[in-house]
Amino acid sequence: MNRYSKPLTKLIAQLSKLPGIGGKTAQRLAFYILSLSEEEAFEIADAIKEAKTTMKYCSVCGNLTDVDPCPICNDNNRDHGVICVVESPKDVHAMERIKEYNGLYHVLNGAISPIDGIGPDDINLRSLIVRLQSEDVKEVILATNPTIEGEATAMYIAKLIKPAGIKVSRIAHGIPVGGDLEYADEVTLSKAMEGRREL
Amino acid sequence: MNRYSKPLTKLIAQLSKLPGIGGKTAQRLAFYILSLSEEEAFEIADAIKEAKTTMKYCSVCGNLTDVDPCPICNDNNRDHGVICVVESPKDVHAMERIKEYNGLYHVLNGAISPIDGIGPDDINLRSLIVRLQSEDVKEVILATNPTIEGEATAMYIAKLIKPAGIKVSRIAHGIPVGGDLEYADEVTLSKAMEGRREL
Repeated sequence: MNRYSKPLTKLIAQLSKLPGIGGKTAQRLAFYILSLSEEEAFEIADAIKEAKTTMKYCSVCGNLTDVDPCPICNDNNRDHGVICVVESPKDVHAMERIKEYNGLYHVLNGAISPIDGIGPDDINLRSLIVRLQSEDVKEVILATNPTIEGEATAMYIAKLIKPAGIKVSRIAHGIPVGGDLEYADEVTLSKAMEGRREL
Repeated sequence: MNRYSKPLTKLIAQLSKLPGIGGKTAQRLAFYILSLSEEEAFEIADAIKEAKTTMKYCSVCGNLTDVDPCPICNDNNRDHGVICVVESPKDVHAMERIKEYNGLYHVLNGAISPIDGIGPDDINLRSLIVRLQSEDVKEVILATNPTIEGEATAMYIAKLIKPAGIKVSRIAHGIPVGGDLEYADEVTLSKAMEGRREL
């Protein structure tokens, strides 16, 4: 026998499917799980099943949620006149951490990327248009990532929405706070110059 | 809402219990799991449950196995006269990879470590003595790790077994193959000198 027993091999194989988890790490995790009490190990397994079963995309904004519509869409204390468009639920979480934005979100769950065959119909974009037609939205903030795909998506959405007379803005790109001019790449620096504001 | 939904928070909390998985990684893994199909996500959860339920310690050697006694102890093609003592099931796997050793194993599932309050009775040692009394063992190879705990454990077992007239050996410590004398630490180098062999 120069292999682990079947259930252990299977566990290692399953764990190494996870992103960033190679064979060695999967093996270490598997042994750790076997060292746990049955109750603790089952807690991990049940958390996976529960999350997978209960978490759905919000039918309004596309965010991950266990109740539909999600708590943000349902919150009447928030400004329903502003929608911030982001690529993923993680971005909503990041935005919520600053505790300053009080509008709604729209999660695209992707970005337009012709190279990967992802067009406007493959992301959660159609429902944004529906929202804009039915709700009284004054501003759409495009907060997709400053990558080629994110920029392309922002441009596409801006072109689509602007004719309807809704204000469309894009978050600022520039030198991150605490960053160093010396180490900033040319594109970031040129964006920072472009977006300069009078004091 | 500046938090994730409850099932997602729970999944992230469970995943960050795993060794080497911090909050950020747990979040990334959780989102990855949610992006899988229900079938794939359940496969991971079920692999955890199955491994935890079926994997037991072999009643003979202490190795992790789904059948008792384990396939190694049950293999009549192996030399039942040699027992290699290791600290963990992972070490059995490492040893099996070299495909040269054909004897049996004894897995201590730990090492003597007075500083952590782990004494000889807290590791799988008593059953080794029982094995030596009932089976016809000619040699015991001590392959615990070259750490303080591993060395102490090896010394302790050697003292315990030697009076019974069984040959006891310790694996060699020295410069790893492909290693560099220049970068070897003093202890390893001194062990390498000590263990030199005539050519």
